[in-house]
Amino acid sequence: MFDVQTIRADFPILSREVNGKPLVYLDNGASAQKPRVVIDAMTRMYEEDYANVHRGLHTLSNLSTEKYEGVRGIIARFLNAPDEHEIIFTTGSTEGINLVSYAWAAPRLQAGDEIVLSVLEHHANIVPWHFLRERQGVVLKWVEPEPDGSLPAEKVLEAVGPRTKLIAVTHMSNVLGTLVDVAAISKGAREKGVPVLVDGSQAAVHMPVDVAAIGCDFYAITGHKLYGPSGSGAIWIAKDRQAEMRPFLGGGDMIDTVTRDTVTYHTPPMKFEAGTPGIVQQYGLGVALDYLMSIGMKTIEAHEQDLRRYTAEKLQGLNWLNLQGVPPEGGAIFSMTLNGPAHPHDMSTILDKRGVAVRAGSHCAMPLMQHLGVTATARASFAMYNTKAEADALVSALELCHDLLG
Amino acid sequence: MFDVQTIRADFPILSREVNGKPLVYLDNGASAQKPRVVIDAMTRMYEEDYANVHRGLHTLSNLSTEKYEGVRGIIARFLNAPDEHEIIFTTGSTEGINLVSYAWAAPRLQAGDEIVLSVLEHHANIVPWHFLRERQGVVLKWVEPEPDGSLPAEKVLEAVGPRTKLIAVTHMSNVLGTLVDVAAISKGAREKGVPVLVDGSQAAVHMPVDVAAIGCDFYAITGHKLYGPSGSGAIWIAKDRQAEMRPFLGGGDMIDTVTRDTVTYHTPPMKFEAGTPGIVQQYGLGVALDYLMSIGMKTIEAHEQDLRRYTAEKLQGLNWLNLQGVPPEGGAIFSMTLNGPAHPHDMSTILDKRGVAVRAGSHCAMPLMQHLGVTATARASFAMYNTKAEADALVSALELCHDLLG
Repeated sequence: MFDVQTIRADFPILSREVNGKPLVYLDNGASAQKPRVVIDAMTRMYEEDYANVHRGLHTLSNLSTEKYEGVRGIIARFLNAPDEHEIIFTTGSTEGINLVSYAWAAPRLQAGDEIVLSVLEHHANIVPWHFLRERQGVVLKWVEPEPDGSLPAEKVLEAVGPRTKLIAVTHMSNVLGTLVDVAAISKGAREKGVPVLVDGSQAAVHMPVDVAAIGCDFYAITGHKLYGPSGSGAIWIAKDRQAEMRPFLGGGDMIDTVTRDTVTYHTPPMKFEAGTPGIVQQYGLGVALDYLMSIGMKTIEAHEQDLRRYTAEKLQGLNWLNLQGVPPEGGAIFSMTLNGPAHPHDMSTILDKRGVAVRAGSHCAMPLMQHLGVTATARASFAMYNTKAEADALVSALELCHDLLG
Repeated sequence: MFDVQTIRADFPILSREVNGKPLVYLDNGASAQKPRVVIDAMTRMYEEDYANVHRGLHTLSNLSTEKYEGVRGIIARFLNAPDEHEIIFTTGSTEGINLVSYAWAAPRLQAGDEIVLSVLEHHANIVPWHFLRERQGVVLKWVEPEPDGSLPAEKVLEAVGPRTKLIAVTHMSNVLGTLVDVAAISKGAREKGVPVLVDGSQAAVHMPVDVAAIGCDFYAITGHKLYGPSGSGAIWIAKDRQAEMRPFLGGGDMIDTVTRDTVTYHTPPMKFEAGTPGIVQQYGLGVALDYLMSIGMKTIEAHEQDLRRYTAEKLQGLNWLNLQGVPPEGGAIFSMTLNGPAHPHDMSTILDKRGVAVRAGSHCAMPLMQHLGVTATARASFAMYNTKAEADALVSALELCHDLLG
């Protein structure tokens, strides 16, 4: 039984006030808040069990290594990855996607080879590919969403040509909430022999993810959006693709032997993890994922879908609000502007006076902003701890915006 | 007045026991423990002020950004950097040195160009250069330490030839504690027009560092060794060198504008910082450095030098101990093996039974191990919270090793 008030009580920050009003935190698309169990686990590790991993042989180092390495299996379970050695620890999706760009794509793609991207992508899934365009003449092919914000799998597959070497696509838009059918894309791509990278930064927060069922090749997640600590994350990379990758970051842990003249590398996943990692935050991510799985991702999804329907209906009822595409399938993420010249930054500032935290800006998705014909939006993005009362608070604060700016 | 017991009381973990004995933590070269003030600051940030940085306009995002960005000035002060915009946040020295390798060296160095390295280097300051050798034919030139473990600046400068494009050298060996005169190296290198990268991972922990006085071009530090959180760090890069660098990781924050066909980049330091950073751990690093500066790095250095003299004399008195070079100038870091076939791993295990945590292995410095003619050592590395009584405990536990393994 999902009880949102019980969940809320797990998150210390949710009981604070902002500008004399109860905090209504609707900036979860940027980063989620952390439950007590995650914060406490990190505190305890620093107070009781901390040492560097992999390297000692002493008690603290063994305790630390056990906690840290245990997270690989937790993430594998969370994503239903066939093998925990396919989980590579990262500092977030940005590092994960750069890993694929530098270690898999850069040595393989030639000038004129193509990468298919959607216009929904976050800069984390755009700029690493722009590097390949700038540096080695790779061609970026863009697929536009429909007017309602949806992105049909067929459109993505239609963009694949004989020189397409990769499809890089989000599982859920961080601006519109669009849920993309990455399983259909992966199935079609596999028939054409084209690997698929999925940016799971948003989707993995809001619904169950099963990389085996999706059938993609790369799936990136970011810990701080998953109620985990900042600087944590992972990317799942299928074994076959791992075998095609050279190392990315060089340093300790990722080597087998180093001499003055030679270097040989560790087997994956270590091959792709250099230097002392974010030990404690990665451990915290494991605790966060265990917490999510104990609630159940299906349960979380049902609650958020309920919030989405409720909020969409309310927002669609506001004549003076320009609500960007609300696709048939998606997460509880809404982008909006006021009709007229008011800037989303001003909306955010006014909402903040009511304790409502939304984000205003381009949301690291400038190509999508250009497609929508705006420079910025105000975005309300919900998490499992949000309530219908908070959706009402958003609407009421938007009405104030309309009064003051409209 | 430095009182080591007062300092020890600041570190919760130091009061724990290991195997029924008080913890004697001498694995600081791998990672240092964290003071209460750092742990609490992170906990409070997650409980009270957390949001993503740079991106919101709401109260929590502003609070978070202020705390996070404030750390740049703290690090600049800690390193005496001329300008806080020369501080680039990283996840540690490994990422910092890889940044230089990928963003500065890779696009500039041609086949046959040389990088001068010392045999003292940690893999973090070796493998990124091996990549350039493997991928583009760069030549690595190695400078050996003296039998006492010291590394004369003249020897490093003598290795510089007409094709040398970079000197990459540690400020303090993580295996022998050797203090390298990086100011003399930088002065000589400047006369030859060769940039200098200094790996400050160890040195910055044990003594005052002044990058302006050193006169190098790049200086990397790692937060988890500096009593800060795991996954924190920075690299100081002189403005002139920054101007020569292309971006490294692509994603949010590091761009100015992104379209389907073009990308332009933010000004440094943001140009080199992609995606949501390790917000809370970077904030924790700032708290750690403030803590260190409130004690005073000179004071810390004096205490550790006292420990070094005391411990060196004790260890040198043990006939059956093979103590690796103890250079005239260095930190309190000692590498040792037992005469005879006993493996350092067994030493570490026995020491651990007495609560003494040392590290056994190659210490991510295989070329140095090869030079020393060993495959591994046991390393005792001291920090500001260690005491002479702990040095005695080490010696007593080593005597047990000798009894059992000798």
